[in-house]
Amino acid sequence: MMKAFKYCPYCGGTVEYKHIPDDTQLRHVCTQCESVHYLNPKIVTGVLPIFEDKVLLAKRAIEPCKGLWNVPAGYMENGETIEDGAQRELVEEANATVTNIRPHLIYSLDKINQVYVLFLGDLVGPTFSNGIESLDVQLFAEDEIPWKELAFTSSAVCIKRYYENKDSQAGQVFLDRYYFDKKE
Amino acid sequence: MMKAFKYCPYCGGTVEYKHIPDDTQLRHVCTQCESVHYLNPKIVTGVLPIFEDKVLLAKRAIEPCKGLWNVPAGYMENGETIEDGAQRELVEEANATVTNIRPHLIYSLDKINQVYVLFLGDLVGPTFSNGIESLDVQLFAEDEIPWKELAFTSSAVCIKRYYENKDSQAGQVFLDRYYFDKKE
Repeated sequence: MMKAFKYCPYCGGTVEYKHIPDDTQLRHVCTQCESVHYLNPKIVTGVLPIFEDKVLLAKRAIEPCKGLWNVPAGYMENGETIEDGAQRELVEEANATVTNIRPHLIYSLDKINQVYVLFLGDLVGPTFSNGIESLDVQLFAEDEIPWKELAFTSSAVCIKRYYENKDSQAGQVFLDRYYFDKKE
Repeated sequence: MMKAFKYCPYCGGTVEYKHIPDDTQLRHVCTQCESVHYLNPKIVTGVLPIFEDKVLLAKRAIEPCKGLWNVPAGYMENGETIEDGAQRELVEEANATVTNIRPHLIYSLDKINQVYVLFLGDLVGPTFSNGIESLDVQLFAEDEIPWKELAFTSSAVCIKRYYENKDSQAGQVFLDRYYFDKKE
């Protein structure tokens, strides 16, 4: 999560957190060059690769949640489309590619300023291997999913929604969120 | 669009743009506190309100594209879900609310590091009026859309996709992008 700004990244001046005209929220404003620094949520983009009704998951080699399984995903970068970002992450984590990439889940984590936008895609091959960020990569059938060893709720929701709805028509998308206040 | 960082917003130290371990891209790294500053795309969220097959558009009171019409939308803020952000923007621009909000269009502008995530919703009322960022707010039937006075391509694609597909089932979503290299 991004920390508050104390200094202006453009001129090095001191930043104040204050009201500005015609805005409903407090903003970080430079006292020297008057730049306004807007802090916004980050997009996590990824794709759940499908092969003969199995899904491809990667075991994380890095923190957080090192050693747990997840849907290949990561922060979207500047200069790419969201679907290209999902495919880049799939290469980095699983050395795999997909065709027919389609939106699947839009999932807000408002308490930590993230939005997951996850896709489905048809795994090419099936060809995959450990990427630099993964300890293992495997295809799982529905009854083999390691539910108790998933890294993130976004992965669990993504997989659950796929199996619940795999027989419905293409193009379906889910709008979901994590309720941080919910007792589980 | 976010400019490059020259100073660390946390400690005020000088920032270098360089390689860091296990990363494929150059990053802004503080030479003093070693913080890595990731610059990522911003989400623009909005909703196209529907009433009896008309769509609600707002005429912009602010730059860029002041005086042109658009789908009520704006930057998603920290601390909100993406669908709540869309509804907040609708209140700010058109004093309107929707029910049955559903994903409609995911639209990347990779050259300017933005992703539009636009929803459809059923306009309540119909009740609407000028918000602080709008000169006018109106319902338009398909043959009344001011195509040549639309502010952004995202608005044009959003409206076009709605009318092309309004008779198909709910849950359909489009994955689209603006091709900056394309000659129009």
